[in-house]
Amino acid sequence: MSFKIESTDPGSSARAGELTTDHGVIQTPIFMPVGTQGTVKAVHQEELSEQIKAQIILGNTYHLYLRPGIDVISAAGGLHKFISWDKPMLTDSGGYQVFSLSGQRKLKEEGAVFQSHIDGSKHLFSPENTIEIQRKIGADIIMAFDECTPYPCEYGYAKNSLALTHRWLDRCIKRFEETEPLYGYKQTFAPIVQGSTYNDLRAESAEVIASKGAEINAIGGLSVGEPHEDMYAMTDLVCGILPKDKPRYLMGVGTPSNLLECIALGVDMFDCVLPTRNARHGHLYTAQGVINIKNEKWKKDFSPIDPSSGSSPSRQHSKSYLRHLFKVKEQLAAQIASLHNLSFFLWLVQESRERILKGTFRAWKDTQVKQLDVRLEVSMSKPC
Amino acid sequence: MSFKIESTDPGSSARAGELTTDHGVIQTPIFMPVGTQGTVKAVHQEELSEQIKAQIILGNTYHLYLRPGIDVISAAGGLHKFISWDKPMLTDSGGYQVFSLSGQRKLKEEGAVFQSHIDGSKHLFSPENTIEIQRKIGADIIMAFDECTPYPCEYGYAKNSLALTHRWLDRCIKRFEETEPLYGYKQTFAPIVQGSTYNDLRAESAEVIASKGAEINAIGGLSVGEPHEDMYAMTDLVCGILPKDKPRYLMGVGTPSNLLECIALGVDMFDCVLPTRNARHGHLYTAQGVINIKNEKWKKDFSPIDPSSGSSPSRQHSKSYLRHLFKVKEQLAAQIASLHNLSFFLWLVQESRERILKGTFRAWKDTQVKQLDVRLEVSMSKPC
Repeated sequence: MSFKIESTDPGSSARAGELTTDHGVIQTPIFMPVGTQGTVKAVHQEELSEQIKAQIILGNTYHLYLRPGIDVISAAGGLHKFISWDKPMLTDSGGYQVFSLSGQRKLKEEGAVFQSHIDGSKHLFSPENTIEIQRKIGADIIMAFDECTPYPCEYGYAKNSLALTHRWLDRCIKRFEETEPLYGYKQTFAPIVQGSTYNDLRAESAEVIASKGAEINAIGGLSVGEPHEDMYAMTDLVCGILPKDKPRYLMGVGTPSNLLECIALGVDMFDCVLPTRNARHGHLYTAQGVINIKNEKWKKDFSPIDPSSGSSPSRQHSKSYLRHLFKVKEQLAAQIASLHNLSFFLWLVQESRERILKGTFRAWKDTQVKQLDVRLEVSMSKPC
Repeated sequence: MSFKIESTDPGSSARAGELTTDHGVIQTPIFMPVGTQGTVKAVHQEELSEQIKAQIILGNTYHLYLRPGIDVISAAGGLHKFISWDKPMLTDSGGYQVFSLSGQRKLKEEGAVFQSHIDGSKHLFSPENTIEIQRKIGADIIMAFDECTPYPCEYGYAKNSLALTHRWLDRCIKRFEETEPLYGYKQTFAPIVQGSTYNDLRAESAEVIASKGAEINAIGGLSVGEPHEDMYAMTDLVCGILPKDKPRYLMGVGTPSNLLECIALGVDMFDCVLPTRNARHGHLYTAQGVINIKNEKWKKDFSPIDPSSGSSPSRQHSKSYLRHLFKVKEQLAAQIASLHNLSFFLWLVQESRERILKGTFRAWKDTQVKQLDVRLEVSMSKPC
């Protein structure tokens, strides 16, 4: 894997770069659609590459380990083949879902013992086996097994948790180095900065992670309920310590404004379920602001959902039609809205990249963040 | 509207033809995907035309009248514009849903008073207002308001019901002739043969319908629970009476075997929810037989869902992957399966058409109907 910074923004810490993997090049900054259970919900793989222009997608180790099971994915020859996706892929380590989804879990030095949210069966995730599982899943980028602390988090708990995360990290690296990729292409390992919202812990963690010399460095434990100001402060602090010449991945973030602000702080990679989850509730993102498409006011609005969207249904169909599909609970509603929101998120990072390359990112970002949260009341375009 | 028979099969009553509407030509025999509430469930309009090769789709007057309401569809400029579909369209009259969906309904000479299955509100459908509603919806082909008798049905009930249906038919025709299309393209009106499973009633009804000189004639009240033999016997009898030079539409039919058998009897047009409804339950149709994709036996079957499918996800994805999507209840499962089944139904009528044109339909049909109901146990193709 190699990373090349093409340009930095004169008015911020934003960078435009290229991350090269054996499955192709990723132009940064980038947003990665989340394919939890081997599918980006309600979206065909062909739509992901052709309409959304996704360059890399995520898989969740916790979900894939439980269903279909690692034996099935191994037999398929890895997740790329299993789901028919030949571009880059990233898997998390399962740590986050163990803490957020599993009904019962127990943290030990060895790892996390948890109960499946599906059938209550008991399992252990450890630094070693989550690396082995991710070798078998075969993503291009695989993540450290860590504890994602909740918010708020007592200082003492955060400090102890961070120490455990760092001990787990060394075990992850050891097992990663002892093992080989299984499917003929390289995998890279990314360590994760934790430390809750405490400056000293975040700084300590960033130093530790930086010292490992990884090809990608991640920032975890944010976007878990803390105020946006805290997220930005922690991201800023950590980006100042992580190596400049390696991509920085801010995990689980966020809203369109979060993306722009964190790109300005030097983040290169993002993932979040927000665009697809909100799509399923009729919440649409556009460059002019947000639309609650279920609202009565769109009932007879025959203007396109978004005439400038990369998603062809958003250009083709009216707000009135999409509202109708939501009101009658048709599956096509989620399909159109998911395509729409993901196209918008990919447009947002692509546009950021172009502005960075031109040196005009900062001013555009400052204007755009104000617009992004506006709640649209009337149509901005002519009828379909 | 014009209909031209291109070829008739020497070994059966099957015909290949072309039905020309203001929204384009329909090559018959044809299967029409059902777009109940203004959407063929789980399928994008672009997929309908490009992958499924649908030439005409259906809308349901009952559903569209209740939601979004005729005011919205009128304001959009008709259903074609509302849902962005520029090929031919057909609407039923709502009669069938009034009898099958509405909790309470009362039949009077005037029409049917029914309660909405959504909010219990009371409505009247009459021959006159269902024609007016269908003018406003704007389908190319609009249907008579009739009573679809249940199965089994007492002779006396069927006889009285048929008389009512015929009286309603005259009122439909009168109102159709008194009104004009609203959107600048022609609409044609199709009367419906009823008469349950009684030879004399079916013959009488077919004579009455034939006497009206309509551009398309429909056969209703079949595929409502009667044995297939009865369906075929009634269809055969009715096709023998309806004019040879006009297309015959068998409503609500059916399985792939039903389609082939009824094409052999002289039917030109079909619609049914079976391919999409069964798709959502993991029941897939192929030329080799049926697949219950949820079955354990497909767990590690990495062969394509159907390598010869017109649907690209069916060629691209494995049975194992689709099974996984169903097991974890992902929306993409229904999307892939619906695309698959509809592509198969359209392939089946297209293939029938080509065999009719070549004069080899009968032998192919006799072999194919035996294969279609085979339950597939093992994969017929190589891994993806």
